[in-house]
Amino acid sequence: MMDNLDCASIPMHSVGPLKIVGPELVEDVLLPLATYETPLWASIGRGARVLSAAGGVYVAVLHDGMTRSVICEADSAEDLRNLVEQLPQYRAQMEEVVAQTGRFICLQDIHSEIVGSLLFLRFEMTTGDAAGHNMVTKAAEALLNWLLTMFAFLRYVSVSGNVCTDKKVSAVNGLLKRGKTVVAESTIPASLCKRVLKTTPEQMVSLNFKKNFVGSVLAGSIRSANAHFANMLLAIYLATGQDCANIVEGSQGITYVEQRGADLYFSVTVSNIIVGTVGHGKDLPFVQKNLAALRCLPQSAAPGRSARRLAAIVAGAVACGELSLLAAQTNPGELMRAHLRLERAPRRTLA
Amino acid sequence: MMDNLDCASIPMHSVGPLKIVGPELVEDVLLPLATYETPLWASIGRGARVLSAAGGVYVAVLHDGMTRSVICEADSAEDLRNLVEQLPQYRAQMEEVVAQTGRFICLQDIHSEIVGSLLFLRFEMTTGDAAGHNMVTKAAEALLNWLLTMFAFLRYVSVSGNVCTDKKVSAVNGLLKRGKTVVAESTIPASLCKRVLKTTPEQMVSLNFKKNFVGSVLAGSIRSANAHFANMLLAIYLATGQDCANIVEGSQGITYVEQRGADLYFSVTVSNIIVGTVGHGKDLPFVQKNLAALRCLPQSAAPGRSARRLAAIVAGAVACGELSLLAAQTNPGELMRAHLRLERAPRRTLA
Amino acid sequence: MMDNLDCASIPMHSVGPLKIVGPELVEDVLLPLATYETPLWASIGRGARVLSAAGGVYVAVLHDGMTRSVICEADSAEDLRNLVEQLPQYRAQMEEVVAQTGRFICLQDIHSEIVGSLLFLRFEMTTGDAAGHNMVTKAAEALLNWLLTMFAFLRYVSVSGNVCTDKKVSAVNGLLKRGKTVVAESTIPASLCKRVLKTTPEQMVSLNFKKNFVGSVLAGSIRSANAHFANMLLAIYLATGQDCANIVEGSQGITYVEQRGADLYFSVTVSNIIVGTVGHGKDLPFVQKNLAALRCLPQSAAPGRSARRLAAIVAGAVACGELSLLAAQTNPGELMRAHLRLERAPRRTLA
Amino acid sequence: MMDNLDCASIPMHSVGPLKIVGPELVEDVLLPLATYETPLWASIGRGARVLSAAGGVYVAVLHDGMTRSVICEADSAEDLRNLVEQLPQYRAQMEEVVAQTGRFICLQDIHSEIVGSLLFLRFEMTTGDAAGHNMVTKAAEALLNWLLTMFAFLRYVSVSGNVCTDKKVSAVNGLLKRGKTVVAESTIPASLCKRVLKTTPEQMVSLNFKKNFVGSVLAGSIRSANAHFANMLLAIYLATGQDCANIVEGSQGITYVEQRGADLYFSVTVSNIIVGTVGHGKDLPFVQKNLAALRCLPQSAAPGRSARRLAAIVAGAVACGELSLLAAQTNPGELMRAHLRLERAPRRTLA
Repeated sequence: MMDNLDCASIPMHSVGPLKIVGPELVEDVLLPLATYETPLWASIGRGARVLSAAGGVYVAVLHDGMTRSVICEADSAEDLRNLVEQLPQYRAQMEEVVAQTGRFICLQDIHSEIVGSLLFLRFEMTTGDAAGHNMVTKAAEALLNWLLTMFAFLRYVSVSGNVCTDKKVSAVNGLLKRGKTVVAESTIPASLCKRVLKTTPEQMVSLNFKKNFVGSVLAGSIRSANAHFANMLLAIYLATGQDCANIVEGSQGITYVEQRGADLYFSVTVSNIIVGTVGHGKDLPFVQKNLAALRCLPQSAAPGRSARRLAAIVAGAVACGELSLLAAQTNPGELMRAHLRLERAPRRTLA
Repeated sequence: MMDNLDCASIPMHSVGPLKIVGPELVEDVLLPLATYETPLWASIGRGARVLSAAGGVYVAVLHDGMTRSVICEADSAEDLRNLVEQLPQYRAQMEEVVAQTGRFICLQDIHSEIVGSLLFLRFEMTTGDAAGHNMVTKAAEALLNWLLTMFAFLRYVSVSGNVCTDKKVSAVNGLLKRGKTVVAESTIPASLCKRVLKTTPEQMVSLNFKKNFVGSVLAGSIRSANAHFANMLLAIYLATGQDCANIVEGSQGITYVEQRGADLYFSVTVSNIIVGTVGHGKDLPFVQKNLAALRCLPQSAAPGRSARRLAAIVAGAVACGELSLLAAQTNPGELMRAHLRLERAPRRTLA
Repeated sequence: MMDNLDCASIPMHSVGPLKIVGPELVEDVLLPLATYETPLWASIGRGARVLSAAGGVYVAVLHDGMTRSVICEADSAEDLRNLVEQLPQYRAQMEEVVAQTGRFICLQDIHSEIVGSLLFLRFEMTTGDAAGHNMVTKAAEALLNWLLTMFAFLRYVSVSGNVCTDKKVSAVNGLLKRGKTVVAESTIPASLCKRVLKTTPEQMVSLNFKKNFVGSVLAGSIRSANAHFANMLLAIYLATGQDCANIVEGSQGITYVEQRGADLYFSVTVSNIIVGTVGHGKDLPFVQKNLAALRCLPQSAAPGRSARRLAAIVAGAVACGELSLLAAQTNPGELMRAHLRLERAPRRTLA
Repeated sequence: MMDNLDCASIPMHSVGPLKIVGPELVEDVLLPLATYETPLWASIGRGARVLSAAGGVYVAVLHDGMTRSVICEADSAEDLRNLVEQLPQYRAQMEEVVAQTGRFICLQDIHSEIVGSLLFLRFEMTTGDAAGHNMVTKAAEALLNWLLTMFAFLRYVSVSGNVCTDKKVSAVNGLLKRGKTVVAESTIPASLCKRVLKTTPEQMVSLNFKKNFVGSVLAGSIRSANAHFANMLLAIYLATGQDCANIVEGSQGITYVEQRGADLYFSVTVSNIIVGTVGHGKDLPFVQKNLAALRCLPQSAAPGRSARRLAAIVAGAVACGELSLLAAQTNPGELMRAHLRLERAPRRTLA
């Protein structure tokens, strides 16, 4: 089957540097970005220049845990209610069941939902430097087996019950978190807004409200208010060997800006960054090269640190691109002009 | 800036053939798929075998139109209400404004929303063989200019108002459509379910309800009930040079299955397939090769036909992967075993 | 069964006057409000004083149409696609089918959705002075019968398919509208904000953004950003004999405010006001009295006008209560103090 | 202001009895229902007959806690992150702050969300026999004051931040719960389905899937899949003096049915029942009478028990009405015939 194995070669470019400060790193970082939408490079590059000139972007991981939900069923809600009431007393056992499935996995939280005679259990686990899709599936299977053994009246329905929820839109991932929740913020002087972004803090505040909030509400968006998180996530996920379909939940986050005196407070809160530095895709040579350049190769002495560091860098990239596009849209005509100009240039270079 | 230009090389493989029947094509097609998640190939391949053996998958495009929303403002809702009431009488003028921005673009629908003194107008246009992101932006700018000229009390807010909505979750794209809405369906004999999918129609119906519907409702999903549309969309978008961040809205669709006597009726309705056969990314050599193999190169004699054909093929791929994963999840342990087995094989090949 | 018929007596009070201006009425109106939450009277009363002193609240109906969705099914999406493509040519026939079910009903729009072999058709109709629940059900039944006759391959599934959607949360009612969409707006001088509302335009703008928009996004709200539309809708629906469970969709609307120089632009856009002046509940004596006092009794010479007038008044009441509560919440402690003070007073009166 | 105090008299009727079994009560109960939509009585009555004949409906409270969210802000997410990390160590202090605001209130859970420099804290508390709107507001104010004192860099934004979320649609109330989450279930013999409901288990399963799930997904519903929970909630809330605008979040729940051999497993999971037996509205004579008849008057020896009992009865009423309407919609024409017949009868009686 593998005889026609080939490669899709996506144009890739490192943009920056972006000055990042915060608990995960204090450093100037070049952002590797793979995309067919090559104007994105210039846009993120402009954001990086502004944020770096403003003293850097503060980035911190607020929450960290990968999830998988399972479905079981019984004859009645009555049976399930009794089961759920007993679960807390088995917590240590369940942690042990999870721990036996791998060295780096640890059960962190359990969320239960009863719907008639169906039981959904959403498990949250830390998964070291891996994004953890497979680790949590394996652990969830072990927990399922344990449950079916402990509670003989239970029946298997599915090892994945869509409350995880993987690569699908939801409110659960925003409210209960999935992957790494990361905030990035910076205060940008008015002069910098004017000179590089061709805008004012006042215009940015107004546009963010009217487009990202009013517009998103009108669109029937859910747990999300931003312009284009997905673009930046995709580009850096591709460049670092991530499971890029996780940009679906990644796209759900919030851009929050304020006027601070004459200056602009700018922030992005990215609810669901799902990245690893080991696992699928990570052993490809260009991925290794990019992870090494980002100093995001896993260190056995500090499991989880390289993935958190990578998540912080990802959020930094999101901040750059979001800042730049919003600024562009405050100016009639700029978006189109930028696209026409930039799309053509790099693509000639590529030819 | 472009001196360090490089490529992210994503493993790519053609899977199939998949027998597709319907208004866009009646043909056996090999599906080009680029992904870091290499078990996806085997999964889609299995789905293609089943659907082809069942006589093929019927695929049809139900709606076709790319969108862009703009924001204007006035001093009052009163002014905006008067404006919106007058718009229908200017329809022909607005169509002409759009037509002057390009040979292949055509204004198809206008949706308006007044929120206090803000006016959101969502324009839907056909864009020939292009996905149309830039074409609709250019046309929306022209419409904005026209509006600001016609109605002197209007003020520019943004050329993109998040009601489009591009690469973000929403209900609007499902309800009012964006890109191509495509349905794919097939009736699969019970024997084929058993032999190749190791499942029964009854199990599939039960799982689809409990996981894709009950689970998605619990997760707080919106306009969506499926297992993993995003995975297939990403793989075929990467292989055909699409703007892959559009898998965000692409991920929102519905898997609907039924028992039909002893057999399984299986369908996917993919609301927002956003693909083109010209534009960004399409001139890369491997993309040209894939589009040629799919017979999806644009033909000047039939603008739009190659993009619709590609959208039909994309929906076919979605059907394959969705069918296969659901079947796997009806069996305890199969998902994990498949991952462990398949992930290792191709990655050794890649090394 | 009716031998134990009795009454729930809800405290009712007329509050105001509120000066309303706009196409439906230019008049000072007393708002009849029935509620167990008696502090609401004082709150709405304060809002009415402010809006009246500001020159009145402009109110206009933006859209008017009641909906019912039906479900049919066929053997395949293929059959349904053909059917949907033919529907436009039967438009006149379908209008006639609807018209034959009643004097005041008129088919206005049809929205179709195919999901595999299921067909959902959402019919929008004008219903004169009735809220129209039963009129649209009757007309939808007639259309269903017509469809089943015309297209022999179709099968009945349900006369109500939850895409209507009646008394349930949704995005569809916001995007495609249901009942009357009404906007209410006013510009309130800073001095009035300070003197009566104990707040500033700046505080109101900030709170509306942080609470109604950021908070609602975080809560996973859908097509909605307001503080408490439901409270006002319930009170005036009870007092005017409406089907009060329609406050569910009524609760989904948007409060949009802006600073205008030193003043406050304040608006509410209420997407789904479902009211009638004939039908269930309207013949109760106190309802007749309230409708008469509001000059909302139906006039045979102008069908639909009294219901639109009532919807405008309802939106005015929503504006009053929303303005007052938001102002209260800009002040630490005021909400609680107001509740403690006001709850006690009227309830002593009631005893 | 109170001189024109009056009453809205809503037709009220007790329907049943309904046999309820479960931890809160094992008893035959008459359901008091106030409504302008008088056909609801017959509909709920039919459901009660069926569920009682089936051996009763099992009802259990799965979760109990009232919520209020507050908003504070700081200069940076960095400050807020440090604060949130420290909160667990102050848990006992915060419980004490809450306990000092009332005898029956107890802090149960805290959910935090950082969005840029904004902090939302959602407090969940038990509130004895009160629905608890004011109790949690008072306690949240005390917690806010404590926070502002403890963390000098914090600033007040609002005592209610829409993440509570009160009387508004959301996913948060479904996922994190608000009020009482109650499940009701019963297995109904096929013969009873046929004889009283004029339907079959198979038809019910099919309709529930196609209407309540597929239809709700299409409508862009959120955390909800049912036919008309809101109707039953409103009628029993009115009759028992509840804050009826809470039917908004109450309307979001799930109807789950299955075929069990030849029989029908029927369940409703009502996520957010917000009821009390003390507080606003409860001292009205007819409310006292209804609460007494339901044996739901508060007992000082068992705080909280009467409210839980009432919530269980409410869920029982929801089950009755949901069962009956779904059965009616499986039959073409029945819904309309029932409305026409029943609406006329009781209204003549009322005249």
